[in-house]
Amino acid sequence: MHLNIGTMKPGPRNAITDVPGVRVGHCTVDTQTHKTGVTVILPCEDDIFLRKMPAACHVLNGFGKTAGLMQIRELGTLETPIALTNTLNVGLVQDALVEYMCRRGEAAGYGVESVNPVVCECNDASLNDIRHRAVGAQEVLAAIESAAEEFALGDVGAGKGMTCHGLKGGIGTASRQVELAGEIFTLGVLVLTNHGRLEDLTIQGRAVGREIFRRIGEDGPDKGSCIVILATDLPLTSRQLGRVIRRAGVGLARLGSFIGHGSGEVFVGFSTANRMEPGEGCMTLRCIREDSMDPAFRAMAEATEEAVLRSMLEASPVTGWTGKHRHSLREFYQETV
Amino acid sequence: MHLNIGTMKPGPRNAITDVPGVRVGHCTVDTQTHKTGVTVILPCEDDIFLRKMPAACHVLNGFGKTAGLMQIRELGTLETPIALTNTLNVGLVQDALVEYMCRRGEAAGYGVESVNPVVCECNDASLNDIRHRAVGAQEVLAAIESAAEEFALGDVGAGKGMTCHGLKGGIGTASRQVELAGEIFTLGVLVLTNHGRLEDLTIQGRAVGREIFRRIGEDGPDKGSCIVILATDLPLTSRQLGRVIRRAGVGLARLGSFIGHGSGEVFVGFSTANRMEPGEGCMTLRCIREDSMDPAFRAMAEATEEAVLRSMLEASPVTGWTGKHRHSLREFYQETV
Amino acid sequence: MHLNIGTMKPGPRNAITDVPGVRVGHCTVDTQTHKTGVTVILPCEDDIFLRKMPAACHVLNGFGKTAGLMQIRELGTLETPIALTNTLNVGLVQDALVEYMCRRGEAAGYGVESVNPVVCECNDASLNDIRHRAVGAQEVLAAIESAAEEFALGDVGAGKGMTCHGLKGGIGTASRQVELAGEIFTLGVLVLTNHGRLEDLTIQGRAVGREIFRRIGEDGPDKGSCIVILATDLPLTSRQLGRVIRRAGVGLARLGSFIGHGSGEVFVGFSTANRMEPGEGCMTLRCIREDSMDPAFRAMAEATEEAVLRSMLEASPVTGWTGKHRHSLREFYQETV
Amino acid sequence: MHLNIGTMKPGPRNAITDVPGVRVGHCTVDTQTHKTGVTVILPCEDDIFLRKMPAACHVLNGFGKTAGLMQIRELGTLETPIALTNTLNVGLVQDALVEYMCRRGEAAGYGVESVNPVVCECNDASLNDIRHRAVGAQEVLAAIESAAEEFALGDVGAGKGMTCHGLKGGIGTASRQVELAGEIFTLGVLVLTNHGRLEDLTIQGRAVGREIFRRIGEDGPDKGSCIVILATDLPLTSRQLGRVIRRAGVGLARLGSFIGHGSGEVFVGFSTANRMEPGEGCMTLRCIREDSMDPAFRAMAEATEEAVLRSMLEASPVTGWTGKHRHSLREFYQETV
Repeated sequence: MHLNIGTMKPGPRNAITDVPGVRVGHCTVDTQTHKTGVTVILPCEDDIFLRKMPAACHVLNGFGKTAGLMQIRELGTLETPIALTNTLNVGLVQDALVEYMCRRGEAAGYGVESVNPVVCECNDASLNDIRHRAVGAQEVLAAIESAAEEFALGDVGAGKGMTCHGLKGGIGTASRQVELAGEIFTLGVLVLTNHGRLEDLTIQGRAVGREIFRRIGEDGPDKGSCIVILATDLPLTSRQLGRVIRRAGVGLARLGSFIGHGSGEVFVGFSTANRMEPGEGCMTLRCIREDSMDPAFRAMAEATEEAVLRSMLEASPVTGWTGKHRHSLREFYQETV
Repeated sequence: MHLNIGTMKPGPRNAITDVPGVRVGHCTVDTQTHKTGVTVILPCEDDIFLRKMPAACHVLNGFGKTAGLMQIRELGTLETPIALTNTLNVGLVQDALVEYMCRRGEAAGYGVESVNPVVCECNDASLNDIRHRAVGAQEVLAAIESAAEEFALGDVGAGKGMTCHGLKGGIGTASRQVELAGEIFTLGVLVLTNHGRLEDLTIQGRAVGREIFRRIGEDGPDKGSCIVILATDLPLTSRQLGRVIRRAGVGLARLGSFIGHGSGEVFVGFSTANRMEPGEGCMTLRCIREDSMDPAFRAMAEATEEAVLRSMLEASPVTGWTGKHRHSLREFYQETV
Repeated sequence: MHLNIGTMKPGPRNAITDVPGVRVGHCTVDTQTHKTGVTVILPCEDDIFLRKMPAACHVLNGFGKTAGLMQIRELGTLETPIALTNTLNVGLVQDALVEYMCRRGEAAGYGVESVNPVVCECNDASLNDIRHRAVGAQEVLAAIESAAEEFALGDVGAGKGMTCHGLKGGIGTASRQVELAGEIFTLGVLVLTNHGRLEDLTIQGRAVGREIFRRIGEDGPDKGSCIVILATDLPLTSRQLGRVIRRAGVGLARLGSFIGHGSGEVFVGFSTANRMEPGEGCMTLRCIREDSMDPAFRAMAEATEEAVLRSMLEASPVTGWTGKHRHSLREFYQETV
Repeated sequence: MHLNIGTMKPGPRNAITDVPGVRVGHCTVDTQTHKTGVTVILPCEDDIFLRKMPAACHVLNGFGKTAGLMQIRELGTLETPIALTNTLNVGLVQDALVEYMCRRGEAAGYGVESVNPVVCECNDASLNDIRHRAVGAQEVLAAIESAAEEFALGDVGAGKGMTCHGLKGGIGTASRQVELAGEIFTLGVLVLTNHGRLEDLTIQGRAVGREIFRRIGEDGPDKGSCIVILATDLPLTSRQLGRVIRRAGVGLARLGSFIGHGSGEVFVGFSTANRMEPGEGCMTLRCIREDSMDPAFRAMAEATEEAVLRSMLEASPVTGWTGKHRHSLREFYQETV
């Protein structure tokens, strides 16, 4: 399905995994009462703990429970996979990542005494029995083990129970290629979408949401969250990554979100182009000159918009544990656009 | 001209001055070499220095020279009028506000030894001989003296030399009414627009910019700034104002900006509903319950989008000191939309 | 033991529990391999989730894993007890607080679908087998159930395995009374200390640490953390609380810390004087006039310094699971001061 | 005079100008009514605008009017000299720096259309007729022209009218050498001191202030500011510089300040080790490994404490325009310590 968002060229998979080394895995919990799961982004094939990556975060709306941002802000590095899950499961998923990192350390011959797991969340309580936390160590490990360059979108993993613009949301992805002084770099985005009202949904300028609303006749407040993860092989410092991810908000706004009160919008980005190894003394970093940032900014805005849209288009309808039903945008999109 | 942005009702003037007590004044410098000026927002008719207002700021892109934000962040109050001008004139305009506040204090019988003028800026160097700072104490005073509830839009005051999405930009405004538990409040926005590329300009979903670009055949980088000033009589604390003004970015994004590198996006907001008087001990503040924030957020997004659009539609074409010409959106809008 | 820190008067218990309604509980895990635990601060006797409190946080050094700060920053409220524990146990303790809040909600007849537990941590890996997380739901519940106005200090609860300035650290507390326009308020501080080098320890100007170092002949890097929790019945807004807690750094510096790289200094504060109940529309807040902040600032600095000192003086020596021994400052203080 | 602050070795001048290329200049305005001036720090001998330096700022207390921080935070670079002056003179000094930068650009053959002058301030209103702004373009130029590696301390330049801990304050400096993997680097600090109460002044643990207070019998609130400028040839990124300058607060606290409400504490730092030249594409940066930050943190704390102390010890007594007299610490220090 060609979506035509923006003007820049996507990578071969149009996915965050177009960035070399990045993989994504899901574990979905789909039972009578649970419509939830966990999604992991593995930033590299080698040891992220020993060879940390420059990273940054930006909080557009902090009504959320994401773990791990404080240290990213201070040290500017990522040292674990990133996990996405439901709001009340952050603690258990964080603990599962601690266990995973400790075991990996032991296997590699070093002891982990301090580690900063990054766990982002959205609230799937409208479809999922969120109070009985269904995602534990086993599910996190399963997601990690399944991580690959090809991965499913929509109502999978952490996206299983999410709602976006009143329809079924979940996992989306997109990528853009950025040329810089003759080199081609890739900027990839993965989103977990759970935000927005149906009536506000606007696709490439068309008030699609209002048309659908007229047919299905239900909507709710802009209550939820949107997590946006950026991976790139552009050589960006932590400060520069922070500037790039701030443009994720552009993509959300263009689809009609006004960043509602109940919606925690949290953006995390990392660059695979520099690695921070333990040691003393000095090192060199590659980075891009500040005047060359615009293509990365535009790519971020385009890829986020497209990833959110794909999270809806790739999702199948889901009926929640209390009988609430979320339609898929796919059911209406052909007719309305 | 009815613009139809969003769903909320504007105030009677569809202007920041719909908020009771708020007035706006301009002084335009329009000579052979200068296309620039100053615009002031007076937050109240009584003494803002003695009776400060809750205020907040948010920096979406800090590539700019705005003065006065540090103290707003710390103390959460506004204590002077807000002035807008060109980038290299911030110092002189700040000094003019200092002079004005000292004189007002003397006239009222108190001495001003410390005061925090708020001066925002955009860069009009493409039309204005910016290096020879044309805005001084006289111009600032003239703008203050001319302040009224009715005021001009477009290429006036600080907006004289500004460029927005490759066309003539400048001063825009809009307002929205917010009902809260039976009371009607007003949220008003004033913008100084100097950002965006022509090709990206999108009006209510239509790629108007690309059509105009095909006709006039010129564009530039997204280089410039956008200043957004919020006034409201909603009883908001400084923290709550900070949340509301963050939604200004939504309005910019919907018109096609991706918040370019060279573009300093700075948002400042104040509430007229609580006043901070000197003294010791305790006081009471009125504020809105956090769960009631959504209408204010939506109002901010809608009013910003509309104010930016009006800054372009109300501006006449201007030819700069080096011969560069900026068309008005008005020349094309009827045909394209 | 009278410590004579500063000039302000402490409350009757010289403890955070001098603030009416505040209680503290511990659960210590003291086994062959584990020297760790959990400490909880209960902010009130009624329902903190339904009647939230204004809160703020400040991160002086963000090399740490504290959970819950993002939402405090956005909404300015506390809605759970605050728990302190060891670094790798944050996930499990967070999950335990989620469980506790869900059950309390059920008992009170409402459903909790989203809750923001605040969990702070320091790293006790030098004395505790931190990788095998010993603090779970049972320990958190035990700490909550034991919460009282009288509570132990030093090597208890989360403080069991902590090291401060090369000696035994742990839990400390202190309070100060603040008079404001005829009313007496209390500002109370609780610390979890795990920072600083022995050679830098300075007590009321005397280089006590160097003297002790000469005798015991061992020291380490300034590696660890210090958590500072502020409770007060001063009517402070979230912004004002943020200003007050920033002064915690003064207390740390006066005892000789230079806020080392490895040391995550995180401060969280709340005020019991305003409560945020669910609902729509407006409310009133009481707050103090900004010009009256100095006594609260001074109180914060004094109470933090004293609380850190008491965390060391009240701690008994502890030998860790690998045989490492931490002396108590008490062994040397009489002689050296 | 050997002050013995801390344990690290100062550079040859014990001054910020120990960092190669850094120079400092003053222009003092000392008339019947004016006790004020301007101090400039020139970061390099070549063109700082074309070859920008990594920079950072930290605001410990934002009750102040410093100009230029927003852009430093966004872009992480310094592109002008840094000027210090009195509170109400920030606008004129900023304008003078704009003029200076434009002229330098013209002389070098390029046009300056946007420039971010950094101007910090403290409030000297107790000794200086601050309302009649005495520092203009001429004074700023004179300060720049007088800049040298050797420079006066105490009641000179911006320090002429400042008050620190109830005694005469002003300009102070100190430096520390940092060894890193066999290389020697220098970290230099310059302060403008105008903060603190006399009774709180503590020198190396001794309550010197209380003793002096008993003799001179006067004190005031902790009202004022302290500006701390860091220069270093350590290869630090903007983020790392931000971590280092945050430790300036340690130095202030150790001398007895509790960072009073009225006191704007603002810290700005830059590194001479990397230069950002215009251009497209990528570049390399040298930086230090995060695990090697501790010596820089300690150096920052020690140098700040010593620089503040020297600002008082090097200042001569000054009588202000309304007859208020500020003693010099020198008058008492020999006797009290």
